[in-house]
Amino acid sequence: MSAVVVLSGGMDSVTALHYAATLHDRVDALSVHYGQRHARELDEAAWQAERAGVGEHQVVDLSSLGALLSGSALTSDVDVPRGHYEDATMRATVVPNRNAILANIAAGVAVARGHSSIVLGIHSGDHAIYPDCRPAFVDALEALLAVANYQPVRVEAPFLHTDKVGILRVGQALGVDYSRTWTCYVGGDVSCGECGSCGERREAFGAVGVRDPLPYATDREGAF
Amino acid sequence: MSAVVVLSGGMDSVTALHYAATLHDRVDALSVHYGQRHARELDEAAWQAERAGVGEHQVVDLSSLGALLSGSALTSDVDVPRGHYEDATMRATVVPNRNAILANIAAGVAVARGHSSIVLGIHSGDHAIYPDCRPAFVDALEALLAVANYQPVRVEAPFLHTDKVGILRVGQALGVDYSRTWTCYVGGDVSCGECGSCGERREAFGAVGVRDPLPYATDREGAF
Repeated sequence: MSAVVVLSGGMDSVTALHYAATLHDRVDALSVHYGQRHARELDEAAWQAERAGVGEHQVVDLSSLGALLSGSALTSDVDVPRGHYEDATMRATVVPNRNAILANIAAGVAVARGHSSIVLGIHSGDHAIYPDCRPAFVDALEALLAVANYQPVRVEAPFLHTDKVGILRVGQALGVDYSRTWTCYVGGDVSCGECGSCGERREAFGAVGVRDPLPYATDREGAF
Repeated sequence: MSAVVVLSGGMDSVTALHYAATLHDRVDALSVHYGQRHARELDEAAWQAERAGVGEHQVVDLSSLGALLSGSALTSDVDVPRGHYEDATMRATVVPNRNAILANIAAGVAVARGHSSIVLGIHSGDHAIYPDCRPAFVDALEALLAVANYQPVRVEAPFLHTDKVGILRVGQALGVDYSRTWTCYVGGDVSCGECGSCGERREAFGAVGVRDPLPYATDREGAF
């Protein structure tokens, strides 16, 4: 068994990477520059890939997709909304069909390299907002990848039924270094601590009772 | 009803474009440069998009995918096989997961632009060789795109149950100018006339009894 891990450099996909590297004989990683504001996460992805001992860590440049898929704050000049992920305004961070695009590119790599699976770091904390993080999406994706090529590609989403708290517990057990992950959506030199992504991360560390090793622009602690 | 047409510049997708432009209130087109040897087809795609009166014709550069998905003669230095599509050697022209990647990018554009459908020019003549041209693929893709975003995206494959002969008949009825389409896989200044793609095209023109307006490097007529 071997796999390609879709690796953004955030805590979810980094934890999925180390979990997959534990589970599988051979793991490659695929990161994407698709026009997002901050490439800092790609540096962390590379560091984690090395640490996890992946065979190949590829970064594919999909920045020309940015203009095509504009309307999302992650790829355009729209202001990133501050506040909790569950706020309706956080829908502005949705990139149309993002996970389907990334997963299908990863599946192409899996076929090219003879991997049996792709691994996604999606989790239940995103179910409310993001349709492409839900179980129905994973099921449909796996059904597509069962027929799209000569050999089927499995879809592994080890955190599909847990949230960032569960992810963090797994990561602690695996010894993941979360100082080398990047979560903030805003893209400053230091994590803002206030966007939905930072807020959810800090809540998770608070819930597990572990200190988040990342510095934040705000000195507020815990949830907001 | 409106749609995004995946437009390669070959006769199948060009015919699908003109059919969709007839059927829908509004049509955009999406072409991809993904590291293929010949960009000539993209010029023809632009010409046809203008002729069909599309709203926007976008070309997305996915050339960095080429290396990732190497192993196919369409994106790598492997020699393009000569001979009929049904030959086993034509499998060398398979780009891993290509149609799933293209269709999902098109679906992202559809969501961003408020289109109800994507349109693919796939046809039954490719069923034997290409898993991602088969009805099971289209069904699975549509099921994925029903759940991957807030609104479903339909998958229209008007030629799914016909072949290049049927496509050509429809195109003749619609007045499609096939002198501005590009089919050859080899990538010379003039179509080679010998690759599987040229051969299948010439067979279709022969079957319909229409002269193929493209010049060929070989002066042989009809099937080979």
